[in-house]
Order: sequence, then C-alpha cells, then structure tokens
Amino acid sequence: MAVYTEVGDDDLQTFLAGYDLGRLLSYKGIAEGVENSNYVVQTERGSYILTLYEKRVRPADLPFFLGLMDHLAAKGFPCPTPIHDRNGNALNPLAGKPAAIVSFLNGVWPRRIRLTHTAQLGEAMARMHIAGASFPGQRANDLGLAQWRPLFELIAERCDSVVDGLAYLVAAELDALEAHWPQSLPTGVIHADLFPDNVFFIGDSFSGVIDYYFACTDAYAYELAICLNAWCFEPDTSFNITKARGMFAGYQKLRRLGTAELAALTWLARGAAMRFLLTRLYDWFNHPEGARVTRKDPREYLAKLRFHQGLASAAAYGLDVD
Amino acid sequence: MAVYTEVGDDDLQTFLAGYDLGRLLSYKGIAEGVENSNYVVQTERGSYILTLYEKRVRPADLPFFLGLMDHLAAKGFPCPTPIHDRNGNALNPLAGKPAAIVSFLNGVWPRRIRLTHTAQLGEAMARMHIAGASFPGQRANDLGLAQWRPLFELIAERCDSVVDGLAYLVAAELDALEAHWPQSLPTGVIHADLFPDNVFFIGDSFSGVIDYYFACTDAYAYELAICLNAWCFEPDTSFNITKARGMFAGYQKLRRLGTAELAALTWLARGAAMRFLLTRLYDWFNHPEGARVTRKDPREYLAKLRFHQGLASAAAYGLDVD
Repeated sequence: MAVYTEVGDDDLQTFLAGYDLGRLLSYKGIAEGVENSNYVVQTERGSYILTLYEKRVRPADLPFFLGLMDHLAAKGFPCPTPIHDRNGNALNPLAGKPAAIVSFLNGVWPRRIRLTHTAQLGEAMARMHIAGASFPGQRANDLGLAQWRPLFELIAERCDSVVDGLAYLVAAELDALEAHWPQSLPTGVIHADLFPDNVFFIGDSFSGVIDYYFACTDAYAYELAICLNAWCFEPDTSFNITKARGMFAGYQKLRRLGTAELAALTWLARGAAMRFLLTRLYDWFNHPEGARVTRKDPREYLAKLRFHQGLASAAAYGLDVD
Repeated sequence: MAVYTEVGDDDLQTFLAGYDLGRLLSYKGIAEGVENSNYVVQTERGSYILTLYEKRVRPADLPFFLGLMDHLAAKGFPCPTPIHDRNGNALNPLAGKPAAIVSFLNGVWPRRIRLTHTAQLGEAMARMHIAGASFPGQRANDLGLAQWRPLFELIAERCDSVVDGLAYLVAAELDALEAHWPQSLPTGVIHADLFPDNVFFIGDSFSGVIDYYFACTDAYAYELAICLNAWCFEPDTSFNITKARGMFAGYQKLRRLGTAELAALTWLARGAAMRFLLTRLYDWFNHPEGARVTRKDPREYLAKLRFHQGLASAAAYGLDVD
C-alpha cells in the first residue's frame, strides 16, 4: 500500500480541466494498490479514483485494460468506468506518469471469507467472463506457464532458504506442469488476480470487481483455479470444500464447465498455486529496504500446491465429475 | 503518511452500527496524517473521515480536540464535525485504538502558496480565534517555551552533525527566548499547527481547516508567528513580505493586533521557528527504519530563525508599528 507519486494541486487542476467533471473538491492519496499510485478524487460531479501507472505496468498494455473496463461497464458488469476527456481519451499524462480517472465503485472487500462470498464470487466471475467474451482486445498472460521457469531460474538458488528442498520441489513440479498443462480449453478475457481485495460487497451483496491490471486472454477455468486458491482455503491453509462447491455452483448457474475443463482443473489449480508461489518468492527475495508494502508469505502457496498435488480429480473440489 | 492500524470490515461494521450513518459503502486508508491512521469512509449518509488515534496522541486530550471541533463547527467555522453515536459519544474503541468519525471537509491544500492564500488564511485564522474564544476547554501547549530546553537536551550532542555550530546557536537562542518571551498577551484556543497541508481551498476560496490535534491555549499572536514561518517564506527560504502583509491584513480585518502583540512579534516568530527546528531535529535523529513518513529538513527552520534574529521590529513583516 503506497502512494509512489505525489500529485500537486495545480497539476491535478490542469489535468482535470480536460474533463467534464466540474471543479476539484478534494483528493487524497489512498493506501491501496501495490502496483500504482491511487487517489480518491471528489469533484462537483461525484467521486472518482485517479490512478497513476507506475513502472510495473507497461504503457502499451493500458489501452487493453482501460478498454476492457469500458467494455465490461457497457455490458452492465459492475466495475470502475474510465472517464474520457473531451477528446475521447481515457489516458493522459500527470506528474510524468500515464494516468486515468475512473468512476468510484462502492463496496468493501471481505477480510473474513464466508460461504455467501464464494457463491456470489462464482456467479460474478461467470458474468464477467460472459460480458468479456465480446471484447475484441487480446493480451497474452505474461505470468503464464511459459514465464514460470525463467522466473524460477532467477530465484532457484535462494529457494531452500525459505523451505528446505523447495528448489527441487519447484523444478519437479514445473516439469510436471509443462508435461500436463491443458491445451484447447475455452478461452477469453480473465481478470487473473481475483483475490478478495479486488472483489467488493455492500453488506452481504456483491457490488463489483476492481483492479484489471493483470487481465489477459487465458482459459476461463484457470480463473476458477486462481480463485479456488485465493478464496477456498482457511487461514490455516486447510481446504474448505463447502466454499469451493459454492463458488463452482455460482459460476455454473451462468456458464457450465465442460468435460475438458473439469478434467483439467487439478492441473490448473497446481499451476495457479505455482504462479503465486513463484511471484511471492520473487517478491520475498527482492523486497526493497523500507518498502511500504507488506511481504506475503510464499509458504501459503506451497501448502496449496501440495494439497492439489495429492488429488486424483476435481471431485475433491466438490464437483460432479463422471 | 501512513495507515498504522488496519481496520477489518467486520470491526468497522460493528463500530458504525452505533451511529446513525446507514450502511457502510466503502472505506479506504488514506496516506495522510503523520500522527494517526485515517480512512475515507462512505456510508449511505455521505462521506466521512475515520481517525484511529495512535500512541503519539494522549487519550486524555481527545475530549478537548473533539469538543473544540464541535464548538467551532457550531459557531459556523468550517472544520470537520465529530459525529456522535446514539449515546452521544464522539469517541469509541476500534481495532484497539480510540477512534472518531468526523464529517468530510471538501477542499485541497495549496502546494504553491500565492498571495490570495495568505490573505484568506489571515482572515480564517481570526475567524477561528473569535469562534474559539467562547470554548470552555483549556489545554496547555505541550510544545511551548518550557518544553524547548528539555527537548534540546535530548538531541544537543547530535546537532552539530546537521550544521556545524548548531548546538551553540540553539543554546544561546534558548537563553534569549527565556529572557524575552512575551507574557500577558491575549490568549485563547489556537490551532498551533496551521501549515498549508491543514488549510483547504476550493479553487481559490478558503474552505476550511483540519487537524486540531496540536490545538491548545496560547497567545493568539503566536499562531500568526507560526503561520509567518509556514506560509510567508519562499522555497529558497527568502522572506516574502507581500504574503506576510496580506496575512496580517486579512487577520486584522476581524481582530486587530494590540501594541503588546505587535511589539512581541519578532520574539514570537523566533520562538515559533525554534519549536519547529527542535521537533524537526528530534524527528531527524529518531527517524524509524523503513518509516513511511518523509523527514522534513530542519535547516529550513534554522534559516527562518536566523532571519527573525536580524530584525529590529515587526515593521519588517510589513506591519505598521509606531
């Protein structure tokens, strides 16, 4: 959580003068977002989020992310809507960074996950996949299978300092994933980072999804696998099959999983665990001195990986598999 | 800028259930406030600021601060208004800290000070002094003259590492301040930390004052001295007499300074410079590892102190003195 770039009031007034948002009433840097700098902005028209894109986001990807939000919002999916300036641009420079202003999405992310959350998450995910199916943009997943081994090689020598034998375990699992990774599953736009802090609820009701800056074109079922890991394990890393069953049931109300997707699910879940294990390990070893971001424990994802490794089929997730 | 205490959504819902604010719609930690943790909270009733008081604020002082905000708001002075729960309490525990929720005050603090800002600041300051005059609370200034020497003694040995000869200069100035410190000036509630980041404007118009957590009972003219230092020097530490003249003129539209106040002003300005020189030196030497707060350069206040030391009278501030 951080504000990396301080925005001056004169600079912000100049930036906003290009938009039809009325006078600036207030802006405050918010302690959210690991990747970018974010401000809550109030104008005469209402509340907005201003984002300055920092160096971890490639400028070339920004039209995809903002176009996706435009598309999902137009389809009625609750997400922040990019505000366009009078020339139609959703991206403009501010304080030397590319910046966008989006509508403020009400909601609170759940710290303690209950069954109602995973059930509504599943349904919302299916809505998002269906709404995104007609989006023409394409973006490869740059944290997908092909990137895991190069990422591992950057940190392999240090893995055993976290857990003894970890380097061997990861290398062997990468071999297995490369041999068994499912091909030809139904594919489209996925969020790819659908953790609880990106999913909002008002009271007990789903209200929207934020933070599309990992969105990419990948297998829909891989999104479910990411969420299985992020939402359906308890803080002690035990698997909660009731929450998983609720998530899949919610999803399948709107989009049924095919036989190939069901068959692939344990491998997708292993891959999803590997992706977050590797990035958390990388961040663990490359944590800047005095950083304003809390390191996340990579061992959480090692435990999840091991759980999926022991499974014979997606029946263990509470799914009907023939 | 920091959020020291993370607030869970369930805890916040429980806290808010005691207030008539409707449902929680969102809350976001804001990167503001060196002393406390602050959140922007949206409920069905509107926008608010939630503050959790951290260890640098004495709980015994909180009723004074919140009572002062209640009083000023009731007198029509634009400041955050404490929200009282259904039992009439403005303070309640949250996440193990005393916490208060106050109305959201629109406005933006000016990064680049112009003449219009100091003129309006002066008038607003006088309004605040007049509105606060009927406030019955009393609180001694715990960063006043009596505290400067003990504070200096904590850091005296390290002062010369910042500027050669600084320890001698501060010791000699403390002698002079103790010998000449004005007594019996008109006294009442002052804000005591009226820096630009606590004074809001919408466009070019003053909109309010925030952050009353240094407020205390002290000489009104000492507040002007603090603002002389905080608002009327340029970034290169040159004094801008036009801004000072504007500030005093704005103030005297509503409250005329007496002869004793005018005569005391250079000593008050030296004292005000000493107070911030000492606390900045202390913070410079006691900056926590990996702190999320930027250190402020104490030498800025040394330059201001030296400027005032060279003056014969408040005429140098653009004031008519007989």
